[in-house]
Amino acid sequence: MNIAFIGLGNMGGAMAHNLLKAGQNVWGFDLSPKALQQFADAGGVVCQSPQAAVQQADIVISMLPAAKHVREVYLGEDGILVALKAGSLCIDCSTIDPKTIQDISAAALAYQVNVCDAPVSGGTIGAQAGTLTFMVGADAETFAATQAVLSLMGKNIVHCGDVGTGQVAKICNNLILGISMAAVAEGMALGAQLGIDPQALAGVINSSSGRCWSSEVCNPWPGISPNAPASRNYQDGFAAQLMLKDLGLAVEAAGQVKQPIVLGGLVQQLYQQLCLQGNANLDFSSIIQQYLVAKA
Amino acid sequence: MNIAFIGLGNMGGAMAHNLLKAGQNVWGFDLSPKALQQFADAGGVVCQSPQAAVQQADIVISMLPAAKHVREVYLGEDGILVALKAGSLCIDCSTIDPKTIQDISAAALAYQVNVCDAPVSGGTIGAQAGTLTFMVGADAETFAATQAVLSLMGKNIVHCGDVGTGQVAKICNNLILGISMAAVAEGMALGAQLGIDPQALAGVINSSSGRCWSSEVCNPWPGISPNAPASRNYQDGFAAQLMLKDLGLAVEAAGQVKQPIVLGGLVQQLYQQLCLQGNANLDFSSIIQQYLVAKA
Amino acid sequence: MNIAFIGLGNMGGAMAHNLLKAGQNVWGFDLSPKALQQFADAGGVVCQSPQAAVQQADIVISMLPAAKHVREVYLGEDGILVALKAGSLCIDCSTIDPKTIQDISAAALAYQVNVCDAPVSGGTIGAQAGTLTFMVGADAETFAATQAVLSLMGKNIVHCGDVGTGQVAKICNNLILGISMAAVAEGMALGAQLGIDPQALAGVINSSSGRCWSSEVCNPWPGISPNAPASRNYQDGFAAQLMLKDLGLAVEAAGQVKQPIVLGGLVQQLYQQLCLQGNANLDFSSIIQQYLVAKA
Amino acid sequence: MNIAFIGLGNMGGAMAHNLLKAGQNVWGFDLSPKALQQFADAGGVVCQSPQAAVQQADIVISMLPAAKHVREVYLGEDGILVALKAGSLCIDCSTIDPKTIQDISAAALAYQVNVCDAPVSGGTIGAQAGTLTFMVGADAETFAATQAVLSLMGKNIVHCGDVGTGQVAKICNNLILGISMAAVAEGMALGAQLGIDPQALAGVINSSSGRCWSSEVCNPWPGISPNAPASRNYQDGFAAQLMLKDLGLAVEAAGQVKQPIVLGGLVQQLYQQLCLQGNANLDFSSIIQQYLVAKA
Repeated sequence: MNIAFIGLGNMGGAMAHNLLKAGQNVWGFDLSPKALQQFADAGGVVCQSPQAAVQQADIVISMLPAAKHVREVYLGEDGILVALKAGSLCIDCSTIDPKTIQDISAAALAYQVNVCDAPVSGGTIGAQAGTLTFMVGADAETFAATQAVLSLMGKNIVHCGDVGTGQVAKICNNLILGISMAAVAEGMALGAQLGIDPQALAGVINSSSGRCWSSEVCNPWPGISPNAPASRNYQDGFAAQLMLKDLGLAVEAAGQVKQPIVLGGLVQQLYQQLCLQGNANLDFSSIIQQYLVAKA
Repeated sequence: MNIAFIGLGNMGGAMAHNLLKAGQNVWGFDLSPKALQQFADAGGVVCQSPQAAVQQADIVISMLPAAKHVREVYLGEDGILVALKAGSLCIDCSTIDPKTIQDISAAALAYQVNVCDAPVSGGTIGAQAGTLTFMVGADAETFAATQAVLSLMGKNIVHCGDVGTGQVAKICNNLILGISMAAVAEGMALGAQLGIDPQALAGVINSSSGRCWSSEVCNPWPGISPNAPASRNYQDGFAAQLMLKDLGLAVEAAGQVKQPIVLGGLVQQLYQQLCLQGNANLDFSSIIQQYLVAKA
Repeated sequence: MNIAFIGLGNMGGAMAHNLLKAGQNVWGFDLSPKALQQFADAGGVVCQSPQAAVQQADIVISMLPAAKHVREVYLGEDGILVALKAGSLCIDCSTIDPKTIQDISAAALAYQVNVCDAPVSGGTIGAQAGTLTFMVGADAETFAATQAVLSLMGKNIVHCGDVGTGQVAKICNNLILGISMAAVAEGMALGAQLGIDPQALAGVINSSSGRCWSSEVCNPWPGISPNAPASRNYQDGFAAQLMLKDLGLAVEAAGQVKQPIVLGGLVQQLYQQLCLQGNANLDFSSIIQQYLVAKA
Repeated sequence: MNIAFIGLGNMGGAMAHNLLKAGQNVWGFDLSPKALQQFADAGGVVCQSPQAAVQQADIVISMLPAAKHVREVYLGEDGILVALKAGSLCIDCSTIDPKTIQDISAAALAYQVNVCDAPVSGGTIGAQAGTLTFMVGADAETFAATQAVLSLMGKNIVHCGDVGTGQVAKICNNLILGISMAAVAEGMALGAQLGIDPQALAGVINSSSGRCWSSEVCNPWPGISPNAPASRNYQDGFAAQLMLKDLGLAVEAAGQVKQPIVLGGLVQQLYQQLCLQGNANLDFSSIIQQYLVAKA
């Protein structure tokens, strides 16, 4: 397999590294010289443009910051679709709105290229460890074709439905996640203010109907989940500004299909407020700080 | 043990029944003749007032609709505190604000009576099956004293801290529950509108960071959780108006300690809206109907 | 006219002062020795209890912090209803829930005493200047009877309907006020961030459909309304904690009649957050600080 | 003056008509044959493309549904910038995000073309009557140059600041408007439920601090403002879906500059919910229906 990898940042770089460790040939492109250097050090072939990277590719993996970059890489003036071999397969792992990848997939038909979406969960730690979860939007045949390469970078490969549904699954999951984290923050802060020991409160919640990933695995109250960002000053987690980005995608996608998401619309703004006040790079569980007395 | 039971409604009646089945002597009171008749049929001793019921009591269990009833039964003109033996133990299982039970507990000291709170989760099904969870607010000695009688009515008896913290735990848990149910409703409705199969979406969420009791055990989308109210037209669950009551307690308790609960304040109103539109008796997961096109 | 005045705080003290200046005989009661001294200095007759104050009264004015105080003064163990002459008139100017005053008014019938509600707007400045607005809930005859005394303390006396509707009018007005202030804060902060001159923005809003009391008279952006609290560091206005109290009344009253107020429920929590962060005594227009970058 | 008019829909058609009535030469383009026919009937010169329309133009007016259309007309493959005479002036009256018009204005410099924004308020009625308000974003010289032509279509021409600030002013005004309308809806519905006569309540609000355009001019309760849409079944006003569009612009613009708008984010979703339930074409004051019992 010849693989092209477009976007070698924190996530993409670690993923490409795992492909190289598995003995694959990987041609890579990124705008950052530093990212390219690290990729070269790991054994990758550095290319000067996306088009150059995909010249030999059977499979393309893209991992980019936002929809506009994905659109540019695939459909732009020097986009890769025109440069790809017929029959090649593109897997976009970026987190973007569903419509963009559906547009690109439709446009790719004319080139006999298959494009599917496979956004990930697991963060940079999962990317480095090769334990990511991929949420794949593709027809059954294409989904089968993604297995070999995705299994080198992740542990769970979930088929969500047709093209775009990988994004839908991720957006909806993170919508629920963002809200339930804020809910746990409110519940923990309220309980503490009312005089219950936070550890005892978390114990009740986690054995009852309030339990959720945010209360069990990533509790925002320091010390409850020993390995959670809250227990290390909200460092090295899922940054508040990334949660904000995903909630923005949810609100945008909801608007496109005229679907109200009342809590989603509010929570987007609460994370915006959190970021405005200087916490953009802290783990998103730091939303609990909005519910505590400001430190002098 | 001589036990007095005040409040023999859907919950209290079933709990008292389990005490009688276990061979206890139970003196009971309720305002409803029908409730008293059922209690008598099960072998209970019907009394004409709370004071009459507690005459012989070593232990009192109360299970009442709201704080004003609890206050009346304990502290009112014909309240039970004055009628109780020194050294007796009162366990209030009602769901009310923490302050009321703390006030009563403080007043009871003068009578050498111990009062603690032990609100439950598990609903009428848990009450009938004797599988309730009790969240107990009491000092360590009093907590130990509650074990014998509570274990006849429930499976889990959790010590939350001092008097009032049982209520705090329940209020905070249900605050998180009410919000996360609405969050799951938004996520499922948005996903469906964006074209993903709800079953596939629930699969992703439940193996990822969006998972919570409301997505796994009681998913609001019909057919996802086979035994959930959503799969039987939202019948026989935790009624929307009871969730509304508990969110009202959260907002009230938060106000008493000047603690903001931003999502809580909003979600209380969303359940109020749900009830206004005729769904007060449906399971609270019917909140998802607010996110779907109104049926013609 | 013999007048009793119960509650001589910042508001009540100033109102009683205006009655004395107009030559009325006023018997007064307050828990604060300092308030009583000021009242005595102005020529009032200091009494040792509410009952003592109303002994001679044809008219009673009460101005108290919350419903529980009003209930205690009228209906408590040493309540005034039993001490009043038949045919006397009580005007409660406190801001409380409508149900409390309706309960008191109903109880007063047995004593042939007329009780009505007349909450005010205009703040301490209006109280001192005698320019308050009274929102009166009373039948037509009682309303007519309030004119003589209220006109000594205020400029506008508005008949809102039967007993309790004065409170309803105030609660609903302040609900809209609290929300629209936050709305103007959001609009001004957003505009500034997007690069428009705040003065120009306020000019457009105030000549267009966004105009409201909060944008015209009390704009939260410093310098727009020269006489507004925002232009003097949010000092000497309508304190955030008072707005919070009134929003709490709105949420409580809405709950009593099962009426959803979605924005109201949220905004109550936003003001709670503002107060938590140390701004309880600032004018409520300081809510705009929640939308600005925290100062270092 | 030779004028080109791009976009002859409900708003643009009526505005162009007023230019023709004032004796101007107007070249027009629209995608709709019907709109072109009406334009021709009124004396306009129908053109087959935007480029054709601007061939002779000294001034271009554009009035288009959304940012993507504006971008296409100015910067697209057959965009007008390349076809315009040096020194010509373009006035975009569409309601879009500020960034788009700033981008176009910057791009126009290369062609020595001046582009400014002048979104309107006043609706189709104002467009027909020639009484629109224009919120103009332009440097002082350009602003002066817009007077002659804008005064043929409107009554108030407000200078908001540099390019883009016209959009900023409109977005911020409508953000406040959308929130305050919902606030008035909540206040009126709550008052009615609490038993006050809506007419009396509106009287209090409109002479007090809750007063706003939405309570005075366009009260959502039927019969309060005789000429308001609420008094004619919410017909012929500012459609809920247009308010939804403007709130979407506010949320989007806020996201671009990382500014939280907490109520704005919520209210966008409430109007989305209103539209979902079949009221997209009703006046936006029909938001009050969300607060009333659903009709059987």
